Amino acid sequence: MLMKQSLYKIFTDPIHGFISVPKGTVLRLLDHAYIQRLRRIRQLGLAYTVFPGAEHSRFSHALGAMGLMQKVIGSLKDKNTTISHDEHQSMLIAILLHDIGHGPFSHTLEHTLIKDFNHEMMTLALMRELNSTFDGELETAIEIFTGQHKKKFLHQLISSQLDIDRLDYLKRDSFYTGVLEGSIGLDRIIKTLRIHQDQVVIERKGIYSIENYIMARHLMYMQVYHHKTVLSADKLIRSVFKRARDLIKEDYNLFIPSPSLKFFLTQNLSAKKGLSPEMMRHFVMLDDNDVLICIKYWAQDKDPILNDLSLRFLNRRFLRTTFFNPEKNSGMHEKLQEKTSTFLKKNRLPFDQNAIAYYLSVHKTESEPYTFQNHSIWILEDQDTAVEFSKAAEARHIQALSQPVVKHYCVHLKEVSL
Amino acid sequence: MLMKQSLYKIFTDPIHGFISVPKGTVLRLLDHAYIQRLRRIRQLGLAYTVFPGAEHSRFSHALGAMGLMQKVIGSLKDKNTTISHDEHQSMLIAILLHDIGHGPFSHTLEHTLIKDFNHEMMTLALMRELNSTFDGELETAIEIFTGQHKKKFLHQLISSQLDIDRLDYLKRDSFYTGVLEGSIGLDRIIKTLRIHQDQVVIERKGIYSIENYIMARHLMYMQVYHHKTVLSADKLIRSVFKRARDLIKEDYNLFIPSPSLKFFLTQNLSAKKGLSPEMMRHFVMLDDNDVLICIKYWAQDKDPILNDLSLRFLNRRFLRTTFFNPEKNSGMHEKLQEKTSTFLKKNRLPFDQNAIAYYLSVHKTESEPYTFQNHSIWILEDQDTAVEFSKAAEARHIQALSQPVVKHYCVHLKEVSL
Amino acid sequence: MLMKQSLYKIFTDPIHGFISVPKGTVLRLLDHAYIQRLRRIRQLGLAYTVFPGAEHSRFSHALGAMGLMQKVIGSLKDKNTTISHDEHQSMLIAILLHDIGHGPFSHTLEHTLIKDFNHEMMTLALMRELNSTFDGELETAIEIFTGQHKKKFLHQLISSQLDIDRLDYLKRDSFYTGVLEGSIGLDRIIKTLRIHQDQVVIERKGIYSIENYIMARHLMYMQVYHHKTVLSADKLIRSVFKRARDLIKEDYNLFIPSPSLKFFLTQNLSAKKGLSPEMMRHFVMLDDNDVLICIKYWAQDKDPILNDLSLRFLNRRFLRTTFFNPEKNSGMHEKLQEKTSTFLKKNRLPFDQNAIAYYLSVHKTESEPYTFQNHSIWILEDQDTAVEFSKAAEARHIQALSQPVVKHYCVHLKEVSL
Amino acid sequence: MLMKQSLYKIFTDPIHGFISVPKGTVLRLLDHAYIQRLRRIRQLGLAYTVFPGAEHSRFSHALGAMGLMQKVIGSLKDKNTTISHDEHQSMLIAILLHDIGHGPFSHTLEHTLIKDFNHEMMTLALMRELNSTFDGELETAIEIFTGQHKKKFLHQLISSQLDIDRLDYLKRDSFYTGVLEGSIGLDRIIKTLRIHQDQVVIERKGIYSIENYIMARHLMYMQVYHHKTVLSADKLIRSVFKRARDLIKEDYNLFIPSPSLKFFLTQNLSAKKGLSPEMMRHFVMLDDNDVLICIKYWAQDKDPILNDLSLRFLNRRFLRTTFFNPEKNSGMHEKLQEKTSTFLKKNRLPFDQNAIAYYLSVHKTESEPYTFQNHSIWILEDQDTAVEFSKAAEARHIQALSQPVVKHYCVHLKEVSL
Repeated sequence: MLMKQSLYKIFTDPIHGFISVPKGTVLRLLDHAYIQRLRRIRQLGLAYTVFPGAEHSRFSHALGAMGLMQKVIGSLKDKNTTISHDEHQSMLIAILLHDIGHGPFSHTLEHTLIKDFNHEMMTLALMRELNSTFDGELETAIEIFTGQHKKKFLHQLISSQLDIDRLDYLKRDSFYTGVLEGSIGLDRIIKTLRIHQDQVVIERKGIYSIENYIMARHLMYMQVYHHKTVLSADKLIRSVFKRARDLIKEDYNLFIPSPSLKFFLTQNLSAKKGLSPEMMRHFVMLDDNDVLICIKYWAQDKDPILNDLSLRFLNRRFLRTTFFNPEKNSGMHEKLQEKTSTFLKKNRLPFDQNAIAYYLSVHKTESEPYTFQNHSIWILEDQDTAVEFSKAAEARHIQALSQPVVKHYCVHLKEVSL
Repeated sequence: MLMKQSLYKIFTDPIHGFISVPKGTVLRLLDHAYIQRLRRIRQLGLAYTVFPGAEHSRFSHALGAMGLMQKVIGSLKDKNTTISHDEHQSMLIAILLHDIGHGPFSHTLEHTLIKDFNHEMMTLALMRELNSTFDGELETAIEIFTGQHKKKFLHQLISSQLDIDRLDYLKRDSFYTGVLEGSIGLDRIIKTLRIHQDQVVIERKGIYSIENYIMARHLMYMQVYHHKTVLSADKLIRSVFKRARDLIKEDYNLFIPSPSLKFFLTQNLSAKKGLSPEMMRHFVMLDDNDVLICIKYWAQDKDPILNDLSLRFLNRRFLRTTFFNPEKNSGMHEKLQEKTSTFLKKNRLPFDQNAIAYYLSVHKTESEPYTFQNHSIWILEDQDTAVEFSKAAEARHIQALSQPVVKHYCVHLKEVSL
Repeated sequence: MLMKQSLYKIFTDPIHGFISVPKGTVLRLLDHAYIQRLRRIRQLGLAYTVFPGAEHSRFSHALGAMGLMQKVIGSLKDKNTTISHDEHQSMLIAILLHDIGHGPFSHTLEHTLIKDFNHEMMTLALMRELNSTFDGELETAIEIFTGQHKKKFLHQLISSQLDIDRLDYLKRDSFYTGVLEGSIGLDRIIKTLRIHQDQVVIERKGIYSIENYIMARHLMYMQVYHHKTVLSADKLIRSVFKRARDLIKEDYNLFIPSPSLKFFLTQNLSAKKGLSPEMMRHFVMLDDNDVLICIKYWAQDKDPILNDLSLRFLNRRFLRTTFFNPEKNSGMHEKLQEKTSTFLKKNRLPFDQNAIAYYLSVHKTESEPYTFQNHSIWILEDQDTAVEFSKAAEARHIQALSQPVVKHYCVHLKEVSL
Repeated sequence: MLMKQSLYKIFTDPIHGFISVPKGTVLRLLDHAYIQRLRRIRQLGLAYTVFPGAEHSRFSHALGAMGLMQKVIGSLKDKNTTISHDEHQSMLIAILLHDIGHGPFSHTLEHTLIKDFNHEMMTLALMRELNSTFDGELETAIEIFTGQHKKKFLHQLISSQLDIDRLDYLKRDSFYTGVLEGSIGLDRIIKTLRIHQDQVVIERKGIYSIENYIMARHLMYMQVYHHKTVLSADKLIRSVFKRARDLIKEDYNLFIPSPSLKFFLTQNLSAKKGLSPEMMRHFVMLDDNDVLICIKYWAQDKDPILNDLSLRFLNRRFLRTTFFNPEKNSGMHEKLQEKTSTFLKKNRLPFDQNAIAYYLSVHKTESEPYTFQNHSIWILEDQDTAVEFSKAAEARHIQALSQPVVKHYCVHLKEVSL
């Protein structure tokens, strides 16, 4: 007797239950060091410092999104959407690899290591490299990923306002943080998702699941992704690396345990002219460990600022975040600079403009729960008519959610009040 | 060794876990036939015909709300809010009894049995009767229930836009229907709820749980409480009883298995001048069983309409609900009447105006996820300032949710299309 | 565009998520009054008096088991097991109807209405009747149900020690009672279930899910199905009906609101010679409502015993259950009879042998978490060898669980102590 | 208005909901680098390579166990058990610190770094160091932890067969792995746990939760802790470090990115004569990162074995585990050695005895779901009598579970079959 499921390797996932990974190309990719590296990069960057349960990695998200994609494709096929074997496999590959270009702590250090860089660039470069390693088997996946495949809906499932990426991470991040308000009704969304004229649409009866999904996304931004302490931890770790760079520029003899991180810190790299093979080779060696091990040893370094910043991180003495209204707070920055300077001086730390900047900065966040302008969501009103979501929904609140939420904030020492 | 928990009787509730009911007055009330009667009244009326899991009773809601009240009071006491033993017990009693006046299938038949009636009237009348049975022990509970207690926040916890009643039923109805979009973050709401200047407020950090709560309420209205088939099942069961009354008026010899239901059907009772002892005595004998057993036997009755309507109910051949825009559908009603008449004629049923009305009617529903006008929700911005919720929330969508959602609909034979 | 899922009607179930019922025969059966009647019969009889959440009906179990069967058949087909369209549909029908012959409160009154009766008899008789109504479309379903179909594994899925019936009710009863210890790993069981030589087997890697399943079943018996108060509520309701019958025998003029219940109570029916058409016609009119409405009105009856027993039920003043060791308690029954008689006398109730029996009786329960003798569970050790479960499991505790757990108990007035 | 909950810092935990950490000593300890270090040590060692969701750290377990301890102490106080403020705080401290001495990947490398070492030693040494840092505030916590406190039950809650440690990790590991069979009924256990004659006991009505707890523990051992692939990943990582040590002994110039790991690898340390300050100083610098970063760079090392072993780890080409019966497999080891040698030779790797040992070894695991000999579980049968659990439980299966489950296994190359 031949056992058919030996065609799959089964994983147990706390979110989606059993995930069946097809043996062959997909499983070999999953076991490839480039994907396995994602096990060492936290999905939510530094959010685990606030939500202790949120220690999940980009790997579990990539695997989960692939499992979800399996379900969605199965459901679409049941509804008579034609998806060839090659397209099916390529969709699994595309979603599995969609985040492969992320660096340590996901977004936190994205702009610290290489100038003019973003992770999508690296993702695509690595996909192409893998494509040649795998003898061209990723061709279709790359077409889909870059939006050049003739079936537009395939790309939409990978990247749009209602893509498998978002569906998995919202559910997953809500689960691991314990923030129940971010939970979404995955089953109902899958059940009502279909393809209409080469476009992803949701059947009318799923409209409330979509309302809920958009609201959940909004609430996750407010409660988790843009949580005050997460924002301040982000700033702190960037200050550590800025300080390290500044010391290196001054020819300070800094111990850097990670050779690949050393490569990036001691050179002034830019992605403007593309990614060199050397940059790629070092990049895939990096993960959260390289960052954390540096901070750990830098906490014993003699430079007072690097030492202070690193110790703050290790002992969880973070900076503080304050949201403010920019119209009502002119002159705020100057006052804070002065107070910060005084504090540093009192603590026998350097207190010039440069030093102040490690401890004080002003930012803004922007989140857009839904926008009807770009890869918007469509509702299938009847067998023939699809309507853009904010027009289909009766309630006005969706239109209100279609405008970006902008928040201005300042990160500062807790001893320095606004 | 005396075991302290013998002061409580423990119930296992799938929503709240263990519920401890204090022995003494509260437990005796719980075991009283008036409360036990709520076991035979479905919490969601006819919604179980659409959501097969939603078979829970008003009793489990009353008990659950009481369990939740225990938690809330415990949490408030931890935050130094003074609540005396008598107030504590009275809160448990008030929430336990808050729905005691409901008739069969909750809201469905509310206006069918007695004119000018609502269930709050009956609740209060029964509370007063119980108060004399229990030698005045319900005095404070009645004060709180009617809003006459000097501590205003006690009443708010029983009845406001953020009361224990709503918190329990949203969570419970979401759980039993399987409509996950209605799930709310109870723990966070309880954790951030406090009393400020004799008023229930939510601490700033709980604001997103409140957004989620209001959105969940909105979605439960859209998906469950005002579900098309639930609305049409409601109409059908009211038509059955209207037909029964009409037959009785014509001196038709109708078999009514339930003596108490017979009392209400054969008399023209009104609550305008209050509730007579006889009305109360018969009312507490009624529950879903009386209604269902009538329909079961009426399905064998010789009257063709009563027979047809009852059989439709038992065999789940419901009428159909269509939502419409009243501005675009003038003349609709006349056309539908004609078509209905034709259908009835073809099926050898009476087809006059009276008969048509059993099968065709026009209604509207109204739901208001949140309103800032009446017992609104307050957010504690800092130690001194409470702000009305829609002003505290940064996003505009809450203001959009503060206006009633009105839907017009028509219930008609499925053979009769709009 | 034709929408494919219009081939199904979708239900939302809190346990299994979405359940797709194929339109046509299966949906027409689901909507048939015989199945809809199960909505009015509680799955767990009187357990809701102890576990307030356990108000679910046999209907939700029947629908849920059908949904689960869909999943299992889908999974078996994926593993290359051949199941024809007719067999597939017949499996859905067989599981949907497997409990159709249950009377009011499931097992509680099974032997009260008809002598020598059990619900399987009635199930089969009703299936046959439906088969002729549906022009022979239930032929295969009946073959499977009665074990006469040539593919033995089909029957095993309907009725064995690891059948879909048990899988659904364990999960469902655990969910609604809130007794988490009864929860089972459905997904893993389905994932590892396959057919080997016309027999249901579990793959080796699923063995711990089966251990857990057997343990869960054991714990549900101990905590729910044989809960002390459930046992005493059962006794009480049987006493009510015994009293009613005794009164009728003595030509007492008893008001019986339910005509069909009257039929059974006023005749001495036996199923020894089969079920007459009249018995079937009245049986399908019965449900929990008929029983509850009788008790409600009998609580106002003048017969002191009927009145007392009925009021006890309505006001939740149940009898008490005490487990005992029969070897150590000889003479116990006599002593209890005496005490009971004294109590009844004191309360001005009849106190003869007949009266005592309403308030006092001795019973035993038996549960067998697993037995290797009858339709046992088989584990597929490798591609060729299936081994009986208790031999495959390494731990000795399973063999220990393979012997019946017998408990002796006495139900008595709480004023009468053992 | 002073807000009382400012006495606590609140964490959101996906298992226990909100956890309130008292400000002051407990919070300062939580934020101390020694505890924060546990964020970088995975709770389940290498189990995340099999269960992708199981990426949680020892920190989240320590925090969670503390949250659970809060609940248990609260419940015990409600039941009139006297626990002083100092005892209360000390219990929180003791449970928070109970795992502080764990090294990288928890148990995996426990014996690789220091001879004659176990993590309890280090835990106690670090507690004592913290005690002097915190001016003696940990005195009582250390007394409780070491079993020297006069109230014995305090120690039992920290360490026994039913301690808070196990309760948290079973629930947590089950949640993160997605292995539902390991889920336990925490609420019921807490509800029925009490102190009787200075001993932790469970009330009679909680006995089935305890059965379930023991069974869950058994199933977690079988399915997770002793999962075949977890065992083989453990062996692989130990082989990597054995190879590194062997190379160092031969004066091979090995790059070790982590200075503290270098300390342990280049010296032959033993804990026989206690832990030196230097050992402690380096130990608290170690976490999973140090290990992973080494393996990453060693995968580029020139030594063929270190290179091969490291690459296997990174690309998830693990060794294979086979369970065997030692009585039936004499001579097995010799045959496998031969085959392994042949394979290594063919792959141009060293193939002497030393080399073979990196790729082949024989082990046994032992798990004991319950034993009545050591810190056993007691059931309170009535107000006066506590009975050891296996005697209180009626079913024989518990006695069967009271004997250790021993499994022999061999880890070998997958190309080398048994």
